[in-house]
Amino acid sequence: MKKGLLIIFSGPSGCGKGTVLKEILQDDSFYLSVSATTRPPRPTDIDGVDYRFLSIDDFQQRIDSNAMLEYAEFCGNLYGTPADMVDKMRAEGKNVILEIEVEGALQVMKKCPDAISIFLLPPSLSELERRLRNRGTESEEVIRKRIQRAEEEIKLAYHYRYLIVNQTVDTAVEDFRAIIRAESRTYHLNQEIIGEILSC
Amino acid sequence: MKKGLLIIFSGPSGCGKGTVLKEILQDDSFYLSVSATTRPPRPTDIDGVDYRFLSIDDFQQRIDSNAMLEYAEFCGNLYGTPADMVDKMRAEGKNVILEIEVEGALQVMKKCPDAISIFLLPPSLSELERRLRNRGTESEEVIRKRIQRAEEEIKLAYHYRYLIVNQTVDTAVEDFRAIIRAESRTYHLNQEIIGEILSC
Repeated sequence: MKKGLLIIFSGPSGCGKGTVLKEILQDDSFYLSVSATTRPPRPTDIDGVDYRFLSIDDFQQRIDSNAMLEYAEFCGNLYGTPADMVDKMRAEGKNVILEIEVEGALQVMKKCPDAISIFLLPPSLSELERRLRNRGTESEEVIRKRIQRAEEEIKLAYHYRYLIVNQTVDTAVEDFRAIIRAESRTYHLNQEIIGEILSC
Repeated sequence: MKKGLLIIFSGPSGCGKGTVLKEILQDDSFYLSVSATTRPPRPTDIDGVDYRFLSIDDFQQRIDSNAMLEYAEFCGNLYGTPADMVDKMRAEGKNVILEIEVEGALQVMKKCPDAISIFLLPPSLSELERRLRNRGTESEEVIRKRIQRAEEEIKLAYHYRYLIVNQTVDTAVEDFRAIIRAESRTYHLNQEIIGEILSC
Protein backbone atom coordinates (compact mmCIF):
# COMPACT_ATOMS: atom_id res chain seq x y z
CA MET A 1 0.00 0.00 0.00
CA LYS A 2 1.41 3.35 -1.07
CA LYS A 3 1.36 5.96 1.71
CA GLY A 4 -1.13 8.78 1.13
CA LEU A 5 -0.14 12.41 0.72
CA LEU A 6 -0.48 15.08 3.39
CA ILE A 7 -2.17 18.19 2.01
CA ILE A 8 -2.36 21.55 3.76
CA PHE A 9 -5.27 23.59 2.44
CA SER A 10 -5.72 27.19 3.55
CA GLY A 11 -7.36 30.37 2.38
CA PRO A 12 -9.31 33.24 3.87
CA SER A 13 -12.84 32.79 5.20
CA GLY A 14 -15.34 33.12 2.35
CA CYS A 15 -12.95 32.17 -0.46
CA GLY A 16 -14.75 28.89 -1.09
CA LYS A 17 -12.60 26.20 0.59
CA GLY A 18 -15.68 24.24 1.68
CA THR A 19 -17.19 24.13 -1.82
CA VAL A 20 -13.92 22.97 -3.37
CA LEU A 21 -13.44 20.33 -0.65
CA LYS A 22 -16.97 19.01 -1.13
CA GLU A 23 -16.07 18.15 -4.72
CA ILE A 24 -12.64 16.76 -3.88
CA LEU A 25 -14.03 14.55 -1.11
CA GLN A 26 -16.38 12.83 -3.59
CA ASP A 27 -13.27 10.79 -4.34
CA ASP A 28 -12.79 8.51 -1.34
CA SER A 29 -9.02 8.41 -1.77
CA PHE A 30 -9.19 11.70 0.16
CA TYR A 31 -9.81 12.09 3.88
CA LEU A 32 -10.53 15.41 5.59
CA SER A 33 -8.79 15.58 8.95
CA VAL A 34 -11.04 16.41 11.93
CA SER A 35 -9.60 18.98 14.33
CA ALA A 36 -9.41 18.31 18.04
CA THR A 37 -10.48 20.82 20.67
CA THR A 38 -10.79 21.22 24.42
CA ARG A 39 -13.90 23.37 23.95
CA PRO A 40 -16.95 21.69 25.50
CA PRO A 41 -19.23 20.17 22.84
CA ARG A 42 -22.40 22.11 21.93
CA PRO A 43 -25.70 20.23 21.72
CA THR A 44 -25.47 19.96 17.90
CA ASP A 45 -21.80 18.88 17.86
CA ILE A 46 -21.00 15.30 16.86
CA ASP A 47 -17.77 13.99 18.36
CA GLY A 48 -15.39 12.87 15.61
CA VAL A 49 -17.33 14.72 12.92
CA ASP A 50 -17.41 18.40 13.89
CA TYR A 51 -14.45 18.04 16.24
CA ARG A 52 -12.70 15.44 18.29
CA PHE A 53 -13.45 16.56 21.81
CA LEU A 54 -10.45 16.00 24.06
CA SER A 55 -9.89 16.75 27.73
CA ILE A 56 -7.38 19.46 28.55
CA ASP A 57 -5.07 16.81 30.05
CA ASP A 58 -5.24 14.62 26.96
CA PHE A 59 -4.61 17.59 24.62
CA GLN A 60 -1.72 18.86 26.76
CA GLN A 61 -0.15 15.41 26.91
CA ARG A 62 -0.27 15.20 23.13
CA ILE A 63 1.43 18.60 22.85
CA ASP A 64 4.14 17.50 25.29
CA SER A 65 4.79 14.23 23.45
CA ASN A 66 4.91 15.97 20.05
CA ALA A 67 1.72 14.18 19.00
CA MET A 68 -0.03 17.32 17.70
CA LEU A 69 0.89 18.41 14.17
CA GLU A 70 -0.22 21.94 15.03
CA TYR A 71 -2.26 23.69 17.68
CA ALA A 72 -3.36 27.11 18.87
CA GLU A 73 -5.32 28.65 21.70
CA PHE A 74 -8.47 30.55 20.84
CA CYS A 75 -10.79 32.15 23.42
CA GLY A 76 -9.27 30.03 26.18
CA ASN A 77 -9.68 26.71 24.35
CA LEU A 78 -7.09 24.62 22.54
CA TYR A 79 -7.60 23.60 18.90
CA GLY A 80 -5.28 21.43 16.84
CA THR A 81 -4.52 18.43 14.64
CA PRO A 82 -3.63 15.18 16.43
CA ALA A 83 -1.02 13.22 14.48
CA ASP A 84 -2.52 9.78 15.22
CA MET A 85 -5.47 9.83 12.82
CA VAL A 86 -3.43 11.57 10.10
CA ASP A 87 -0.74 8.87 10.29
CA LYS A 88 -3.32 6.08 10.34
CA MET A 89 -5.20 7.33 7.27
CA ARG A 90 -2.00 8.00 5.32
CA ALA A 91 -0.79 4.50 6.16
CA GLU A 92 -4.06 3.23 4.67
CA GLY A 93 -3.23 5.07 1.45
CA LYS A 94 -5.59 8.02 1.91
CA ASN A 95 -4.56 11.53 0.92
CA VAL A 96 -5.19 13.46 4.12
CA ILE A 97 -6.33 17.07 3.83
CA LEU A 98 -5.79 19.52 6.68
CA GLU A 99 -8.07 22.53 6.28
CA ILE A 100 -6.25 24.85 8.63
CA GLU A 101 -5.29 28.48 9.13
CA VAL A 102 -1.93 29.90 8.11
CA GLU A 103 -0.55 29.85 11.65
CA GLY A 104 -1.20 26.12 12.02
CA ALA A 105 -0.05 25.46 8.47
CA LEU A 106 3.37 26.91 9.25
CA GLN A 107 3.72 24.51 12.17
CA VAL A 108 2.80 21.53 9.97
CA MET A 109 5.23 22.59 7.21
CA LYS A 110 8.02 22.58 9.79
CA LYS A 111 7.09 19.16 11.21
CA CYS A 112 6.21 17.50 7.89
CA PRO A 113 8.42 18.80 5.09
CA ASP A 114 6.70 16.37 2.70
CA ALA A 115 3.34 18.14 3.17
CA ILE A 116 1.89 19.67 0.01
CA SER A 117 0.68 23.19 0.73
CA ILE A 118 -2.10 24.83 -1.26
CA PHE A 119 -3.47 28.32 -0.69
CA LEU A 120 -6.89 29.15 -2.15
CA LEU A 121 -7.33 32.78 -3.18
CA PRO A 122 -10.47 34.75 -4.00
CA PRO A 123 -10.40 36.38 -7.47
CA SER A 124 -10.18 39.77 -5.71
CA LEU A 125 -10.73 41.32 -2.29
CA SER A 126 -13.89 43.05 -3.53
CA GLU A 127 -15.25 39.70 -4.77
CA LEU A 128 -14.48 38.18 -1.36
CA GLU A 129 -16.38 41.05 0.29
CA ARG A 130 -19.33 40.43 -2.05
CA ARG A 131 -19.35 36.72 -1.17
CA LEU A 132 -19.20 37.43 2.57
CA ARG A 133 -22.06 39.95 2.22
CA ASN A 134 -24.14 37.52 0.16
CA ARG A 135 -24.08 35.06 3.02
CA GLY A 136 -26.21 37.67 4.78
CA THR A 137 -25.37 36.23 8.18
CA GLU A 138 -22.70 38.65 9.35
CA SER A 139 -22.85 42.19 10.69
CA GLU A 140 -21.04 45.00 8.90
CA GLU A 141 -18.36 45.07 11.57
CA VAL A 142 -17.72 41.32 11.33
CA ILE A 143 -17.43 41.59 7.53
CA ARG A 144 -14.94 44.45 7.83
CA LYS A 145 -12.86 42.41 10.28
CA ARG A 146 -12.95 39.34 8.03
CA ILE A 147 -11.76 41.36 5.04
CA GLN A 148 -8.94 42.78 7.10
CA ARG A 149 -7.99 39.32 8.30
CA ALA A 150 -8.21 37.94 4.74
CA GLU A 151 -5.78 40.63 3.63
CA GLU A 152 -3.31 39.62 6.35
CA GLU A 153 -3.65 35.93 5.49
CA ILE A 154 -3.21 36.47 1.74
CA LYS A 155 0.04 38.32 2.45
CA LEU A 156 1.33 35.09 4.02
CA ALA A 157 0.50 32.95 0.97
CA TYR A 158 4.18 32.99 -0.03
CA HIS A 159 4.75 30.21 2.51
CA TYR A 160 2.71 27.83 0.33
CA ARG A 161 3.95 25.86 -2.66
CA TYR A 162 0.76 26.25 -4.71
CA LEU A 163 -1.72 29.08 -5.25
CA ILE A 164 -5.16 28.38 -6.66
CA VAL A 165 -7.39 31.30 -7.62
CA ASN A 166 -11.04 30.39 -7.09
CA GLN A 167 -12.38 31.93 -10.30
CA THR A 168 -14.92 29.11 -10.62
CA VAL A 169 -15.37 25.98 -8.50
CA ASP A 170 -14.63 23.80 -11.54
CA THR A 171 -11.26 25.34 -12.38
CA ALA A 172 -10.25 25.39 -8.71
CA VAL A 173 -11.17 21.71 -8.30
CA GLU A 174 -9.30 20.81 -11.50
CA ASP A 175 -6.25 22.72 -10.25
CA PHE A 176 -6.42 20.85 -6.93
CA ARG A 177 -6.68 17.47 -8.66
CA ALA A 178 -3.82 18.30 -11.04
CA ILE A 179 -1.59 19.26 -8.10
CA ILE A 180 -2.31 15.96 -6.34
CA ARG A 181 -1.77 13.95 -9.53
CA ALA A 182 1.50 15.74 -10.25
CA GLU A 183 2.75 15.38 -6.66
CA SER A 184 1.97 11.66 -6.76
CA ARG A 185 4.37 11.40 -9.72
CA THR A 186 7.39 12.97 -8.01
CA TYR A 187 10.53 10.87 -7.98
CA HIS A 188 10.86 10.59 -4.21
CA LEU A 189 7.39 8.98 -3.94
CA ASN A 190 8.14 6.51 -6.71
CA GLN A 191 11.73 5.41 -6.21
CA GLU A 192 10.67 1.80 -5.79
CA ILE A 193 9.21 1.56 -9.30
CA ILE A 194 12.67 2.03 -10.83
CA GLY A 195 13.77 -1.26 -9.31
CA GLU A 196 10.52 -2.96 -10.32
CA ILE A 197 10.82 -1.84 -13.95
CA LEU A 198 14.43 -2.95 -14.18
CA SER A 199 13.69 -6.35 -12.71
CA CYS A 200 10.89 -7.43 -15.03
CA MET B 1 2.34 37.89 -21.15
CA LYS B 2 3.25 35.19 -18.66
CA LYS B 3 6.55 33.47 -19.46
CA GLY B 4 6.20 29.87 -20.60
CA LEU B 5 7.63 26.91 -18.72
CA LEU B 6 10.76 25.01 -19.67
CA ILE B 7 10.16 21.26 -19.68
CA ILE B 8 12.85 18.60 -19.92
CA PHE B 9 11.41 15.33 -21.25
CA SER B 10 13.55 12.22 -21.33
CA GLY B 11 13.16 8.48 -21.41
CA PRO B 12 14.77 5.51 -23.10
CA SER B 13 14.37 4.89 -26.80
CA GLY B 14 11.15 2.95 -27.45
CA CYS B 15 9.33 4.05 -24.28
CA GLY B 16 6.84 6.16 -26.24
CA LYS B 17 8.04 9.76 -25.89
CA GLY B 18 7.01 10.58 -29.46
CA THR B 19 3.47 9.29 -29.04
CA VAL B 20 2.97 11.22 -25.80
CA LEU B 21 4.42 14.39 -27.34
CA LYS B 22 2.16 14.11 -30.39
CA GLU B 23 -0.85 14.37 -28.06
CA ILE B 24 0.63 17.12 -25.91
CA LEU B 25 1.57 19.22 -28.96
CA GLN B 26 -2.07 19.28 -30.13
CA ASP B 27 -2.30 22.13 -27.64
CA ASP B 28 -0.46 25.03 -29.23
CA SER B 29 0.60 26.48 -25.89
CA PHE B 30 3.40 23.92 -26.20
CA TYR B 31 6.44 24.18 -28.45
CA LEU B 32 8.88 21.35 -29.11
CA SER B 33 12.43 22.65 -29.28
CA VAL B 34 14.39 21.74 -32.43
CA SER B 35 17.95 20.57 -31.81
CA ALA B 36 20.88 22.11 -33.63
CA THR B 37 23.63 20.08 -35.24
CA THR B 38 26.82 20.48 -37.24
CA ARG B 39 26.07 17.25 -39.12
CA PRO B 40 25.55 17.95 -42.85
CA PRO B 41 21.86 17.80 -43.81
CA ARG B 42 20.63 14.66 -45.56
CA PRO B 43 18.47 15.01 -48.68
CA THR B 44 15.25 14.46 -46.68
CA ASP B 45 16.19 16.81 -43.82
CA ILE B 46 14.29 20.08 -43.50
CA ASP B 47 16.28 22.84 -41.81
CA GLY B 48 14.46 24.10 -38.72
CA VAL B 49 12.17 21.06 -38.61
CA ASP B 50 14.39 17.97 -38.31
CA TYR B 51 17.33 19.99 -37.04
CA ARG B 52 18.73 23.48 -37.17
CA PHE B 53 21.83 23.00 -39.27
CA LEU B 54 24.65 25.19 -37.99
CA SER B 55 28.24 25.60 -39.16
CA ILE B 56 30.93 24.34 -36.81
CA ASP B 57 32.04 27.96 -36.23
CA ASP B 58 28.54 29.11 -35.36
CA PHE B 59 27.98 26.15 -33.00
CA GLN B 60 31.37 26.62 -31.32
CA GLN B 61 30.76 30.34 -30.87
CA ARG B 62 27.46 29.58 -29.17
CA ILE B 63 29.20 27.16 -26.82
CA ASP B 64 31.86 29.75 -25.99
CA SER B 65 29.30 32.48 -25.32
CA ASN B 66 27.16 30.19 -23.15
CA ALA B 67 24.35 30.30 -25.72
CA MET B 68 23.81 26.52 -25.80
CA LEU B 69 21.62 25.07 -23.06
CA GLU B 70 23.29 21.69 -23.59
CA TYR B 71 25.39 19.97 -26.20
CA ALA B 72 27.28 16.77 -26.91
CA GLU B 73 29.50 15.32 -29.58
CA PHE B 74 28.32 12.20 -31.37
CA CYS B 75 30.20 10.48 -34.21
CA GLY B 76 32.29 13.59 -34.80
CA ASN B 77 29.33 15.97 -35.01
CA LEU B 78 27.97 18.42 -32.42
CA TYR B 79 24.35 18.28 -31.31
CA GLY B 80 22.66 20.63 -28.85
CA THR B 81 19.94 23.08 -27.84
CA PRO B 82 20.53 26.74 -28.71
CA ALA B 83 19.13 29.05 -26.04
CA ASP B 84 17.88 31.72 -28.44
CA MET B 85 14.73 29.98 -29.72
CA VAL B 86 13.90 28.56 -26.27
CA ASP B 87 14.07 32.05 -24.75
CA LYS B 88 12.04 33.58 -27.57
CA MET B 89 9.22 31.01 -27.37
CA ARG B 90 9.06 31.19 -23.56
CA ALA B 91 8.89 35.00 -23.77
CA GLU B 92 5.89 34.53 -26.09
CA GLY B 93 4.24 32.43 -23.36
CA LYS B 94 4.85 29.01 -24.90
CA ASN B 95 5.76 26.04 -22.73
CA VAL B 96 8.94 24.81 -24.38
CA ILE B 97 9.66 21.07 -24.34
CA LEU B 98 13.19 19.75 -24.71
CA GLU B 99 13.14 16.10 -25.73
CA ILE B 100 16.71 15.28 -24.81
CA GLU B 101 18.90 12.54 -23.40
CA VAL B 102 19.89 12.33 -19.76
CA GLU B 103 23.38 13.72 -20.36
CA GLY B 104 21.99 16.88 -21.96
CA ALA B 105 19.19 17.10 -19.40
CA LEU B 106 21.72 17.29 -16.57
CA GLN B 107 23.38 20.26 -18.28
CA VAL B 108 20.04 22.06 -18.66
CA MET B 109 19.07 21.39 -15.01
CA LYS B 110 22.29 23.09 -13.94
CA LYS B 111 21.82 26.11 -16.21
CA CYS B 112 18.04 26.48 -15.71
CA PRO B 113 17.03 25.50 -12.17
CA ASP B 114 13.43 26.47 -13.03
CA ALA B 115 13.22 23.70 -15.64
CA ILE B 116 10.60 21.02 -14.95
CA SER B 117 12.09 17.59 -15.50
CA ILE B 118 9.99 14.58 -16.48
CA PHE B 119 11.27 11.06 -17.11
CA LEU B 120 9.07 8.68 -19.06
CA LEU B 121 9.42 5.04 -18.08
CA PRO B 122 8.31 1.87 -19.85
CA PRO B 123 6.05 -0.38 -17.71
CA SER B 124 8.93 -2.89 -17.60
CA LEU B 125 12.18 -3.70 -19.39
CA SER B 126 10.60 -6.73 -21.03
CA GLU B 127 7.74 -4.57 -22.34
CA LEU B 128 10.31 -2.12 -23.73
CA GLU B 129 12.06 -5.00 -25.45
CA ARG B 130 8.74 -6.15 -26.91
CA ARG B 131 8.06 -2.63 -28.25
CA LEU B 132 11.51 -2.35 -29.80
CA ARG B 133 11.10 -5.77 -31.42
CA ASN B 134 7.63 -4.87 -32.72
CA ARG B 135 9.10 -1.98 -34.68
CA GLY B 136 10.78 -4.71 -36.70
CA THR B 137 13.41 -2.33 -38.02
CA GLU B 138 16.34 -3.18 -35.79
CA SER B 139 18.77 -6.07 -35.74
CA GLU B 140 19.05 -8.32 -32.70
CA GLU B 141 22.35 -6.71 -31.75
CA VAL B 142 20.95 -3.16 -31.96
CA ILE B 143 17.97 -4.20 -29.80
CA ARG B 144 20.28 -5.70 -27.18
CA LYS B 145 22.35 -2.50 -27.11
CA ARG B 146 19.23 -0.35 -26.79
CA ILE B 147 17.96 -2.39 -23.86
CA GLN B 148 21.31 -2.10 -22.16
CA ARG B 149 21.35 1.65 -22.77
CA ALA B 150 17.75 1.96 -21.52
CA GLU B 151 18.79 0.23 -18.32
CA GLU B 152 21.62 2.71 -17.80
CA GLU B 153 19.34 5.68 -18.51
CA ILE B 154 16.58 4.48 -16.18
CA LYS B 155 19.14 4.24 -13.38
CA LEU B 156 19.70 7.99 -13.81
CA ALA B 157 16.00 8.86 -13.51
CA TYR B 158 16.57 10.01 -9.93
CA HIS B 159 17.85 13.30 -11.32
CA TYR B 160 14.33 14.12 -12.52
CA ARG B 161 11.52 15.68 -10.48
CA TYR B 162 8.74 13.61 -12.06
CA LEU B 163 8.42 10.01 -13.21
CA ILE B 164 5.65 8.98 -15.57
CA VAL B 165 5.11 5.29 -16.29
CA ASN B 166 3.81 4.83 -19.83
CA GLN B 167 1.19 2.19 -19.02
CA THR B 168 -1.14 3.66 -21.66
CA VAL B 169 -0.74 6.76 -23.80
CA ASP B 170 -3.85 8.29 -22.21
CA THR B 171 -2.67 8.03 -18.60
CA ALA B 172 0.81 9.22 -19.55
CA VAL B 173 -0.61 12.25 -21.39
CA GLU B 174 -2.91 13.04 -18.45
CA ASP B 175 0.04 12.78 -16.06
CA PHE B 176 2.04 15.14 -18.26
CA ARG B 177 -0.81 17.67 -18.42
CA ALA B 178 -1.40 17.48 -14.66
CA ILE B 179 2.29 18.16 -14.00
CA ILE B 180 2.23 21.24 -16.25
CA ARG B 181 -1.02 22.50 -14.71
CA ALA B 182 0.32 22.00 -11.19
CA GLU B 183 3.67 23.63 -11.96
CA SER B 184 1.85 26.64 -13.44
CA ARG B 185 0.20 27.10 -10.05
CA THR B 186 3.38 27.26 -7.97
CA TYR B 187 3.81 30.36 -5.86
CA HIS B 188 7.01 31.59 -7.49
CA LEU B 189 5.29 31.77 -10.91
CA ASN B 190 2.29 33.62 -9.49
CA GLN B 191 3.66 36.10 -6.99
CA GLU B 192 2.22 39.01 -8.95
CA ILE B 193 -1.38 37.83 -8.50
CA ILE B 194 -1.16 38.41 -4.75
CA GLY B 195 -0.72 42.14 -5.33
CA GLU B 196 -3.46 42.14 -7.97
CA ILE B 197 -5.97 40.41 -5.67
CA LEU B 198 -5.21 42.74 -2.77
CA SER B 199 -5.57 45.86 -4.94
CA CYS B 200 -9.01 45.20 -6.41
